[in-house]
Order: sequence, then structure tokens, then C-alpha cells
Amino acid sequence: MLRKVEDRAPRVVTAQPHGPAAAITRRAADRLRAGHLWVYRSDIESLVPPIGATEIQPGALITVMDSRGIPLGTGLYSAASQIAVRIVSNEAALPRTAYLEQLRERVLAALALRDEVAPESMEDDACRLIFSEADNLPGIVADRYNDLVILQLLTQGTAQDDVRNLLTEVLRDRLRPNIHPDTGGITLWERPDPKIRELEQLAHPAPGPLHPPHHQDTTETPQLTTIFTINGLRFHFDAGSGQKTGAFLDQRLNYAAAARYATGSALDICTYQGGFALHMAQNCRQVTGVDASLSALEVADRNRELNPDLQAQIEWLEADAFELLREYESTGQQYDTIVLDPPAFAKSKRAAEGAMRGYKELNLRAIKMLRPGGTLITCSCSHHVPLQEFTEVVSSAASDAGRRVQLLETRGAPPDHPAILTLPETSYLKCLITRVG
Amino acid sequence: MLRKVEDRAPRVVTAQPHGPAAAITRRAADRLRAGHLWVYRSDIESLVPPIGATEIQPGALITVMDSRGIPLGTGLYSAASQIAVRIVSNEAALPRTAYLEQLRERVLAALALRDEVAPESMEDDACRLIFSEADNLPGIVADRYNDLVILQLLTQGTAQDDVRNLLTEVLRDRLRPNIHPDTGGITLWERPDPKIRELEQLAHPAPGPLHPPHHQDTTETPQLTTIFTINGLRFHFDAGSGQKTGAFLDQRLNYAAAARYATGSALDICTYQGGFALHMAQNCRQVTGVDASLSALEVADRNRELNPDLQAQIEWLEADAFELLREYESTGQQYDTIVLDPPAFAKSKRAAEGAMRGYKELNLRAIKMLRPGGTLITCSCSHHVPLQEFTEVVSSAASDAGRRVQLLETRGAPPDHPAILTLPETSYLKCLITRVG
Repeated sequence: MLRKVEDRAPRVVTAQPHGPAAAITRRAADRLRAGHLWVYRSDIESLVPPIGATEIQPGALITVMDSRGIPLGTGLYSAASQIAVRIVSNEAALPRTAYLEQLRERVLAALALRDEVAPESMEDDACRLIFSEADNLPGIVADRYNDLVILQLLTQGTAQDDVRNLLTEVLRDRLRPNIHPDTGGITLWERPDPKIRELEQLAHPAPGPLHPPHHQDTTETPQLTTIFTINGLRFHFDAGSGQKTGAFLDQRLNYAAAARYATGSALDICTYQGGFALHMAQNCRQVTGVDASLSALEVADRNRELNPDLQAQIEWLEADAFELLREYESTGQQYDTIVLDPPAFAKSKRAAEGAMRGYKELNLRAIKMLRPGGTLITCSCSHHVPLQEFTEVVSSAASDAGRRVQLLETRGAPPDHPAILTLPETSYLKCLITRVG
Repeated sequence: MLRKVEDRAPRVVTAQPHGPAAAITRRAADRLRAGHLWVYRSDIESLVPPIGATEIQPGALITVMDSRGIPLGTGLYSAASQIAVRIVSNEAALPRTAYLEQLRERVLAALALRDEVAPESMEDDACRLIFSEADNLPGIVADRYNDLVILQLLTQGTAQDDVRNLLTEVLRDRLRPNIHPDTGGITLWERPDPKIRELEQLAHPAPGPLHPPHHQDTTETPQLTTIFTINGLRFHFDAGSGQKTGAFLDQRLNYAAAARYATGSALDICTYQGGFALHMAQNCRQVTGVDASLSALEVADRNRELNPDLQAQIEWLEADAFELLREYESTGQQYDTIVLDPPAFAKSKRAAEGAMRGYKELNLRAIKMLRPGGTLITCSCSHHVPLQEFTEVVSSAASDAGRRVQLLETRGAPPDHPAILTLPETSYLKCLITRVG
């Protein structure tokens, strides 16, 4: 697509290109050739600084080559992360101007996909606009909540002013006509993720609104909060707080599915700001939302107030999920519908085993607490627990509980949170909808 | 639940119950204890005929016990199938009267689930009503197409008059009030699956309408054909022909999803009676439906005529999928949307390797033939190819084609075709919706 820069990005380079480069292990080279997009630090055999320099600049574009010097592509280099290079092109020695040009095209393609797939109804106004590798835009995430767009620049290569300015310009120009044309379009807000920025050793700028250099309206008061709509329900969003951006947009369609199946008396474990609970309240008599975070529950209750049509009796309970389920089980508490949506137990491959024990316990107790014919909606957002293993752990819980469990739907993230087929790490969200006999 | 027969079905029996029994291997016993529901012939250590008999009657209810004589439950015995016993209860020595009583309750539960989950809209009138093990009703399948209900009795234990009469009575009584109350309700039609009946060594009765013994209207003319509606589109159904019953009801919601993503010029490989093709014709300019069966395509064209509002130009092509894709690829044919919905390549575990080669070739050629930004909707209904392996083969095709593939949705069968968590064999349908860059 970038033919105009071809003269500066030859397809075949010498084993020692002029720019910075990394030679990687055979295993890593095979992985990239199969369509993977990451080079782990442990797979780097040698780093070649650019001519005249002693080291590679953090965030630089570097050519990746196999151990024989055959180039495999260009990637964003991180001097800090375990993912040392994120591939952005299969052309070698891609210059930064060409990277920025392709960035523009890829952002437009990402937005075109969302025009097609999300949000699902005219009423709804929240979805993920840019999802990093899954949109061929490593290190960049953008979420839309009504008229607020939250941008995250998550790697040394993207947390730079040229990327920031380009994204600001493209997002503002492209979204302006669609969103609130009468009231002046969107507010674009950059919110760094402290943990990831620590991993990447990035500076911690204060979060704040972004304005394209050529816009004159930089004196407008920054807008931090908004109300957005998903599946016809309204939720508060506050760019200045919350566990993370994209809070629960990835569960958007699973909320809608849960609402279709939920009946009677429902329990929502790890409700956060009430996503599943309020959706289920459309069809349930009674809903209890449980979370360890009181501040999340306070938002959940404000969200409840935003939806006065909900008829269910709703209560919020600040509690540890494991402790509460142990207590409820011992007191013989019973429900018609239970949602389990715990945070990612397995933050690393090593933690996966402990995570499986956690999933087993939660699911076992939930299955036991369901009335015959009850519905269990059980989720996992651990990258390191594949669907098959998660399904097996729920199956094992069913077997231990001596209950027959029908699997009605196996769900994942919505299409505005796509995955890359050749990068299984991008498929992370699992949601099983089951009927417990 | 069946407390009234408890005196005849003690929870603890001696190692030699009075009725017929089978002792099974430790491995098989462990599998049943983990919630699996089948005993393979190769796992039977000994068969114990009932007192006074020399062999176990085909289709009899037999007690399954581990090698130490500890009972594990009761199952339907088949003297012919590789699946020698299908568990129907975890109580030992379940008498046939109790089996029939629980059958009634389980059929009612299956129908109650469909009332809740399918069909999705008032306009639609087709779904699977009973799905064998997945509804705790091994050897029984029932599909509804508008006012026709097609029943299949697929094992020696269920292809018997007592089961047939009970199902006829329950289905007619239960469905009558819902379906065409003015015109006299449903026609219930038994259609044996010749292949499965051969495996089970069942007699081949002529397919025909079923009437409950106590109904007086047995003189009505049997009705063989109907027109049913899914996702607002109309299709012919003919109980006297077709590859199998339940023809393509399991793809019902995947058709609707395909319609949402399809654009431009579309190719539907293995279109059968036009399911995907006609759904895509709602949003495409041009659709080509390909199948090796001319008679299927003739029905597809009659289905097209049933939906005169479809604006797309639709053509049907009798061809072998592999040959056609080879030819199209060599002539540089390009599409915006391609559906691959081949028949189950892997009919056995042994055939899975060949099946993977088949999937790889079809998917590779399809990916190459898609314009940039095109949509590939790729399905597998092979029981022996798990989702993860199928996803990997599509990923490998993407990698070989040098194309970047976004996975937008991972779909399966609709909730009226549930699976049993502890019986992974019941999860068979995979449908990936992808965007090819």
C-alpha cells in the first residue's frame, strides 16, 4: 500500500542495514514467519545500533532479521518490555515517515470496521475504536464512550508526540461528523495505564485532553465525564477514575446475552460498576451485585439511578468473591442465575495453575448454589487460560458438583475487540452461558 | 426426582444385580464419574445377562458397574454400535417404567428450554426441539419446521414402540397449543437415518406420520412438505428427501451473522439448499452458491423464489468445491465475501488428519481469492476437529497466504443445539467470522 516510500524501504537489505536491527533466534523467526507479531527479549541474539551510535533508541523502528541476516520486517523496539519488538511491517528498514503514513491508513481501516460492526444499534454509543495488534496498530488503544474518546499509547514506540499528534488529528477529523455534529464533536483524552507504562519505563504525563496542532479550540474546558449507552442501558464514564479504560466494553454483547437468559433471583460476582447486574435487572426479580471495591459499587449504584425503568430489586454488596461464596454456600443460599466475571487471575503463564484453582472453586460453588434449571454465566479474561482449558475447568466443577450442565453459548469479545488469528494472545475473553440441571 | 420408583431402584446394589449389567474398565468408569455419558464397546470387561437369560436384549436398560462391582448408573444397551451403553441415569437398575417416566419429564424440560431460547423471533418457526445427550435424551432427536416435527429414534434402546408412543403423545399435546391452533396443530413424522440405523442394526421401517394411540384423527392425510421461516427468510422443507433432518438448523444464527457481515460479490461453497447464500443475498450485489448436489441446488433455487424481495443477482453452480476453487484461483477470480461450509470431513478420529488437509486447502484458496478487507466465514461440523485445531488450520492458511486475518467472531451452534460440558463430543459446530486484510 505504501508504494511511494518503496525507494526508501527496499525489500532486500544487506545483513547489516544502516538503521538499527536485531538478529533473533530461529524459533522466533519461525514464529514471525507463521504470522506472529512479537519478538521476546529472550529471543534476541544480537542488537545492532545504527551507524554512528552505541545503542538503539527506546521506541525506535528496527529491522528484525533471522540469524542468517535475512530480514523479516520492521518493528517498534522497546528497551524495557519483555516484548522487545512489536512488528509493524514485513518490509525491512521502514522509515518513521512511512510508519506514520501506514498508521494513518490503519487507523482509518480500524474506524471503518467499527462503522460496520459496532455499536450494534443507533441508540448505543460506546465501543473500542482501536485495539492494538488486532488492528495492526501495536501499542495503541482507543475507546469511545459517547462523546469522549480515551486514547492509550502503551509502548515506547507509540508514546511519542508524532504518533500522538497524528492520532489526535485523524480521530478528531474522522469522528467529528458522526458524533454530536451540533455540539462540536468529541473530546479526545489520553489516559496512561500506570502498570503498562511502568513496564515500558515511560514517563508518567498527567492524563489530559488532546488537541490537534492546527485546531484553534484549545481553550475549551476539558470534559472528564460522560454518560454512554450500551444495549439501551445508560452508564456513567469518568476518564479520571476507574480500574482501566475500556472498563467493560468487551463484555458489551455478553451483557446483552446474559439479560436474555437471566431469570428470578440473580447474583453477579465481581460486578464492578454493575454491568451484568443492571442488564439482568431487566428480566430478574432480584439482583445482588458483589464487588471488592466500594468505589466501583458506588458507581454501580449511580448507574442504577440512570436507568429508572429497571423493576428488579437491586442490592450491592462489598465483599471478597471467594469468602462470600463460601459463606453463602454454607448457609444454603440459592439463586436462579449466577454471573462469574472475576478479574484476570492468570497475569502470566506461571500464574495459570493458581488461576485454574481459582476458577474451579468459584465455578464449583456457583454451580452448587444454583437451583435446578438455573443459569450460570461464567467468564474468564485471563490471556493465559485458553478457552478449552477454561471449559474443562467448568466441566470439572460440574462433575464435582454432580450436576449436569448444558452449554448453551460459548461467547467471546465483540467484533470491535477482534483477535488476530496468528496471534492467539489477542483472544482473551471467554464467556460460557450454561444451564445447570 | 423419581422418588416414587425409589423402592425399585435402590441406590446400592450388589455386584450382581438381578437385571442385565456390564462391568467396565477403570478408565471408562473414571470417565463416567467425570460426567461422560458413553461406554465404548472396547471398554466393556464383561456382560452379565439377566437371571434366566443367555444374552442381553438389544436396547435393554442395563446397570453399568466398575470392575469392583460398584454401580455407576443405568444405560441403554446397544448390541451393535461402538457406543455400547448410553447412560440415562446415575441410579442402578432403573426399570423401563421409570425410564419412560423420566423421558417424559426430560422431553418437557427440553421443550421448555426452546420456549425460552428458540426461535428468536415471533416470525421464525424452526428449531431443534430435542437433541439427544445434550437434552439428557440419548438416541432421540426432534426438529421442528413450522407445523412439521421430524422425529429420529437412533438407538436400539429408543427405536421401540413404548418410546415412540410416549414421544408422540407428549410432543403432540405440548406443541399443539403453540403451533397453528386454528388449523389443528402439528404433524409428527418419524424419519429414520439410514446410516445410523445400519450402525445400530435397526429395522428400516418406512418413514411416516405418527399418531398417538388415543387420538381419533388418524385418518388425516399425511403432510410431507412445509415452508418454514428462519431470520425472516422462507425455506422449503420436504420430510421425504434431503441429506438429513435438521438439515441446517444448526447454522441458523450463523446465517444471520453472515448476513450482517457480507458485502459486494459473495461465494457460498457447499451451499446445500442455499442457506448462507440467500441470507447473504440480503446485503450483497451478487451471490454464487456452489454445491456438488444438483437436487440440493434445485431446492436452493425454489427457496430463492420463496423470497422475492432479495435484490442480489443469485446463481447456483453444480461443482466440486476443491476443483472449483482451484480453477477460480488460477483464473484470478476475486470475491468480497466467501463462505466455506463443507460437510464433515472427519467422520472418525482417524480421518481427522485428512480432514485438516481438506480444511487447509479450502481455506487457503478462499483467503487468496478475497479482496483486501474481504470477509471469510469458515465452518467445520466435524466432531473430531476441535475448535482450537480448526482455528489453527485457518491461521496456518492465513500465514501461507501472507494475509493478515482478523477474527471478528467465533461462533458455534445455536442454544437450541446445546452441548454437554462433560461430553465434548456434543460440541461439534465451529464458525469463524474473519476479515482478511
